[in-house]
Amino acid sequence: MIFGFHLYARDGLARAGRFCTAHGEVETPVFMPVGTAGTVKAMTADSVRATGARMILGNTYHLMLRPGAERVARLGGLHRMMDWPGPILSDSGGFQVMSLAALRALDADGVTFRSHIDGSTHRLTPERSVAIQHALDATVTMAFDECTPFPATEEQARDSMELSMRWAARCRSAFAPRDGYALFGINQGSVFPALRARSAEALARIGFEGYAIGGLAVGEGQAAMFAVLDFVVPLLPADRPRYLMGVGTPDDIIGAVMRGVDMFDCVIPTRAGRTARAYTRRGVFNLRNARFADDDRPLDPGCACPLCTRHARAYLHHLFRCEEMLGPMLLTWHNIQYYQDLMRGLREAIRAGRLAAHAAALRGAWAAGDAT
Amino acid sequence: MIFGFHLYARDGLARAGRFCTAHGEVETPVFMPVGTAGTVKAMTADSVRATGARMILGNTYHLMLRPGAERVARLGGLHRMMDWPGPILSDSGGFQVMSLAALRALDADGVTFRSHIDGSTHRLTPERSVAIQHALDATVTMAFDECTPFPATEEQARDSMELSMRWAARCRSAFAPRDGYALFGINQGSVFPALRARSAEALARIGFEGYAIGGLAVGEGQAAMFAVLDFVVPLLPADRPRYLMGVGTPDDIIGAVMRGVDMFDCVIPTRAGRTARAYTRRGVFNLRNARFADDDRPLDPGCACPLCTRHARAYLHHLFRCEEMLGPMLLTWHNIQYYQDLMRGLREAIRAGRLAAHAAALRGAWAAGDAT
Repeated sequence: MIFGFHLYARDGLARAGRFCTAHGEVETPVFMPVGTAGTVKAMTADSVRATGARMILGNTYHLMLRPGAERVARLGGLHRMMDWPGPILSDSGGFQVMSLAALRALDADGVTFRSHIDGSTHRLTPERSVAIQHALDATVTMAFDECTPFPATEEQARDSMELSMRWAARCRSAFAPRDGYALFGINQGSVFPALRARSAEALARIGFEGYAIGGLAVGEGQAAMFAVLDFVVPLLPADRPRYLMGVGTPDDIIGAVMRGVDMFDCVIPTRAGRTARAYTRRGVFNLRNARFADDDRPLDPGCACPLCTRHARAYLHHLFRCEEMLGPMLLTWHNIQYYQDLMRGLREAIRAGRLAAHAAALRGAWAAGDAT
Repeated sequence: MIFGFHLYARDGLARAGRFCTAHGEVETPVFMPVGTAGTVKAMTADSVRATGARMILGNTYHLMLRPGAERVARLGGLHRMMDWPGPILSDSGGFQVMSLAALRALDADGVTFRSHIDGSTHRLTPERSVAIQHALDATVTMAFDECTPFPATEEQARDSMELSMRWAARCRSAFAPRDGYALFGINQGSVFPALRARSAEALARIGFEGYAIGGLAVGEGQAAMFAVLDFVVPLLPADRPRYLMGVGTPDDIIGAVMRGVDMFDCVIPTRAGRTARAYTRRGVFNLRNARFADDDRPLDPGCACPLCTRHARAYLHHLFRCEEMLGPMLLTWHNIQYYQDLMRGLREAIRAGRLAAHAAALRGAWAAGDAT
């Protein structure tokens, strides 16, 4: 089997499973920390592993600009370069081209753009995106698509989705099948059920090892996002992993898991870790707040990360106040640990058939807070 | 014994020994990484330990301003706050008051100054400095002195040294003896042998658990520094550790060890680690240099740190080019590892009676370089 995916438990629409790749197994639902430019920001690969994370994400756009896909290939691929022998999913580059690059010009064949770093001109097409992801040695290659902006009219969303579906077919042709490697298609269609349905049909006809839901978490809000998931997830092939790109907060993830999503990635835990925002079993805290200056309690007594087992909140507050690098280092570690613990808890709850009660307990503890 | 120091080998003037503290043993010659504000910058306490470092330094000036000495005490002391149960030496605050603080006013009793952070007014006296270091729970407390500026006239140097000696006696009186804790005196006198000799006599008369050589590495150059060491080290009590404050490069350290110095601290390995300067067995490299962009070799094949065993130079170059935090994290770790390996090599060479040959071999390898 090219990319095995085995479901072993269901609880409502939620699923617990496992997929087997050339770089190891991954339990789902899974959260993939984001390793933008070949590093999960402020973390060593060892510390990422120590959190229980088994799969990470790399960004094609960033890596094609620096250090360059062919250079990564010469260095033995992304796994070897960054000391991450486990599975890596690479995005297609399309999303960052639209959000970061200057002077981008979209045509039927692809997109030409200027680097946000040095203004140099580059081009991405379905074939080039797949070739770059191959050079990176990505375990999971994402189809090159246009992430439909939000809001969009139905006509704009239709044109964009249809372009993405044509590109998806070209990605399928360009992708070199290898045991334990996968190509995922991306469902588009904005918030329009008819378009999402047509996209799901088009992708299933082409056939992929997994199916992503794109064009969400772009400003539509959680309710609209969940409404799209309610509609589209049942239309995706049940025997393949489903990946909600760029999502999200713990609450977003719980809601999506309960709607049948298996895979997630998001910069929230790492970005928050650099800005003193802590995700905990008692909600989100800003460690810059003066109320933590003398707080000698662990950040999250339920957490096994080095920050929570060895330091007081007051120390973390001090580190952020002094702009010491160790603040972001320890808090990013904690936040990733929290996300991994969250996912492990969700997997166990699905296996035990008690996901709804587990989710309610998590949300209750967040709401209770932990004031000094 | 309050603070045991045992010499077990000599090679010329160089000594290998061990001192026993309330927080564990330390082999000398020792290099103490600098943990300015309660963190060795860009390192977790675990990674500092992993390099073999057994003793670190904390800065009284920084810690009294943020988070505050009494707050550190409430958090269980500096060891507990920063997860460093091993020995910690704190400086007296005097050096940073002179180099960092605004509007400082020196009088016979102490110094009043404004914080460089928020302009708040603070005062340090010998008694207050000792009290702060006690609150921090420093294993080794340094006497509060005036670090004589360089250059200074002989008269200026004499007045400054005599002030420091009066303060040294007050520190001795203020210091609460505790088993396994120490107070070190600091020799001053600039580059004037007669003043250094009078300072050594004054300190020995007061009596300390260790003796530091201050007022060096302040712009006088290596030759002048070594000339002072040649003169002053033999005047310090032979049965006590000798500490050369704020030194230095690997070559400085080798020269000082060969002149009988036992202890060192310096920001060079940590600061260099944040600015892409790598200390290696083949000399100093700037990893931002374009020649490293495709260099797939380990930074230093003789080094066991995570950077050297798991990543290529090209990856480190990429991280610094992208201003990824992992660049400073990995390179600081490497530089501290290099310094610890250097000290271990010096200790072994002293025990084997082959320090001169060992030093020549180290210097030869640096000079040979490692061009691509």
